[in-house]
Amino acid sequence: MAEPFSFKYQLSTMAKERLDPSEIGVMIKLSIEHKAISLTAGEPSADIYPVEELKRAFGTIFEDPSLLAYAKEDFGLTELREWITERMRSDGMIPDWVTSRNILLTNGAGEAIELVAETLIDPGCTVLVEAPTFTETLLTFRKQGANCVGVPADDDGIIPEEFEKLLRSRSVRFLYTIPNFQNPSGRTSPLARRKEILAIAAKYDIPIFEDDPYHYLSYDEEAPATYLSLAGDDRRVLHSNSFSKLVAPGMRCGWLVVPDAIIPHLNAFRISAGLTRPAILQLGLYNYLSSVDFGERVGFLRDTYRVRRDGMVKAIEKHLKPLGIKTNYPKGGFFLWGEAQGIEDMTAFARFAVEKKKVGIIPGSAFYTIDEAKNGRGAFRISFAKVDPQTAEEGIKRLAEAFKEYR
Amino acid sequence: MAEPFSFKYQLSTMAKERLDPSEIGVMIKLSIEHKAISLTAGEPSADIYPVEELKRAFGTIFEDPSLLAYAKEDFGLTELREWITERMRSDGMIPDWVTSRNILLTNGAGEAIELVAETLIDPGCTVLVEAPTFTETLLTFRKQGANCVGVPADDDGIIPEEFEKLLRSRSVRFLYTIPNFQNPSGRTSPLARRKEILAIAAKYDIPIFEDDPYHYLSYDEEAPATYLSLAGDDRRVLHSNSFSKLVAPGMRCGWLVVPDAIIPHLNAFRISAGLTRPAILQLGLYNYLSSVDFGERVGFLRDTYRVRRDGMVKAIEKHLKPLGIKTNYPKGGFFLWGEAQGIEDMTAFARFAVEKKKVGIIPGSAFYTIDEAKNGRGAFRISFAKVDPQTAEEGIKRLAEAFKEYR
Repeated sequence: MAEPFSFKYQLSTMAKERLDPSEIGVMIKLSIEHKAISLTAGEPSADIYPVEELKRAFGTIFEDPSLLAYAKEDFGLTELREWITERMRSDGMIPDWVTSRNILLTNGAGEAIELVAETLIDPGCTVLVEAPTFTETLLTFRKQGANCVGVPADDDGIIPEEFEKLLRSRSVRFLYTIPNFQNPSGRTSPLARRKEILAIAAKYDIPIFEDDPYHYLSYDEEAPATYLSLAGDDRRVLHSNSFSKLVAPGMRCGWLVVPDAIIPHLNAFRISAGLTRPAILQLGLYNYLSSVDFGERVGFLRDTYRVRRDGMVKAIEKHLKPLGIKTNYPKGGFFLWGEAQGIEDMTAFARFAVEKKKVGIIPGSAFYTIDEAKNGRGAFRISFAKVDPQTAEEGIKRLAEAFKEYR
Repeated sequence: MAEPFSFKYQLSTMAKERLDPSEIGVMIKLSIEHKAISLTAGEPSADIYPVEELKRAFGTIFEDPSLLAYAKEDFGLTELREWITERMRSDGMIPDWVTSRNILLTNGAGEAIELVAETLIDPGCTVLVEAPTFTETLLTFRKQGANCVGVPADDDGIIPEEFEKLLRSRSVRFLYTIPNFQNPSGRTSPLARRKEILAIAAKYDIPIFEDDPYHYLSYDEEAPATYLSLAGDDRRVLHSNSFSKLVAPGMRCGWLVVPDAIIPHLNAFRISAGLTRPAILQLGLYNYLSSVDFGERVGFLRDTYRVRRDGMVKAIEKHLKPLGIKTNYPKGGFFLWGEAQGIEDMTAFARFAVEKKKVGIIPGSAFYTIDEAKNGRGAFRISFAKVDPQTAEEGIKRLAEAFKEYR
């Protein structure tokens, strides 16, 4: 029999050269295979999905059959876009110019990132990202051909001097940042730092793409003002967000705040990506959001995750600190970032830990651009989102044992 | 006040040069504005959405809360992918090698087209399409930078000699075809024609991308064998399909049959586009499909649309034929194609007809590549999907009056 068609000579450059398998997926799978305690996935905790409320909210999604047609509203269900606008307005997250017509509903924030990448990236252009940053964003930007360059960061996020140094040295398309409780580092940029970064972006006249899915998940104090609101009428900030952490990832609903100047482009890219996302689902989500006290929901999430953050921090102080392993203290979100001096190859260590000690972590190199992966050499990410304090204690104990044996 | 940031210097080539507004959207909007009889939209008829059945089917989508997490199944809900595989198998649409692991669930067939475009298109490469063809596919292919070249077609679809002539003259990435009841022409390629086209594709060793959303909507006889099944073990055919016409467009659920050779690429593109589509919706759809007699549903759709097709054809014979306007006879789908000699600018005529005579049609040029738009000069598309025989009679009468006055 002849060989099946290989597609070898038809594959695009995008498909051939710009896709890399994620080390995160590998580690999540290994954790399951080895029945390990998993500190890997940045996924909300399944026990706090509002299942009963959602069930009620979705009970009426078929009352208006016109939602079963091709959607008439380009950017998604108006009610939900208005809910988002009002919520962001009352929480001081948006400047005056943002109305529901600037809200584009997407398939999770991931699709928002994809659409921005299509709008602003040409092959070979430079995009600045935090070092380290969210792996899937790197995948998406690289797919479009971006040369992603990491801006060195400290515990307060991007370092302004390093940011400006890079802007002086080359033409940059935009800066991508997760300013709150960043994935993977857990870092948050304080207000003063944000103002500095924004002033530099304005000086060099580049836009900022702010990805803020952890905004409400603050456990010690409210998150600082968004770049979007700080920029005000200047309108150089794109802002993506998501219901994945607030309601459930399975909703596959995120949004992008789109400045008027690029609404037509985003709309065309949305059409090309399969028209709108499902309006019945957007209605179910809207029904849910308008039937609950959102502030209470956020309070519940904060209380739940705070306990886990505290449990994880305590276990780390007990078991890792004595080994000289440095970790940071995240004020929100799902993650903390560790650095273990003396470990040259954290990927190899992570595999050792999951196989021999049955505890899964993500090696830091997964969050750097290919060129800069060596910077993540001794680093690792820990997720506490799904880990109660007892499990954290046991998991971190195992991790400490793994470090002791491996060294 | 300073001007808001324009994004002018950051826009990608994709955003700046490869997006064109669709004349279809314009005509649909004009039809609504002028309260015209609309023969424009290629949309299923809202009165035949299975609302009650869907309501029941969605009643249990929250029973398994794990569907609210990030999906564990890369390509979408296994049950639905298995249903699709079995259905296509029993209807002879797939060769043996296709199993549920080759089925990727997408946000309508539109997203399937987008993902294939990313996988197989590089800027400047040539992609062959039928002339005329589906406007949104042209948008998506052009967005990736393809040079779309139309293969001349007759009433049996692509003309084999023209296809081969083009393949001899240049390097081609793939052929895109809607073989059944094509949008916009209503044309269907008979079996013998398909075999010829496939043999030529094999001779020049290029893949075929078969888009088959109207497959089941045949009103006179079953659709001929798919390119996918005809290619058999050769595996050079990608096949996209959709539930939009079978259930409802608001489901936003389509699928792509992916040959094994490119599963990893499609998976990476899917991740980059916002991970999976909503599994709860896929479950609701699966519940619906497994609770009804699909054959009966298809029979009902055929009976409903056949009456409309017949009504439209009858009105055309009565009012347009005497004017010397040529139209074809579609054996299925939603569309028929007309050609009016002597009309140099069909776009201008379509605007005249909607404004003065309150009847909306789509000018043919919307379905050609930019370079070839002049070929659609005297042509127009009529959709009968939402038009009962009485309305067809009145609409076509108005159209005939418009032609008489305009000439």
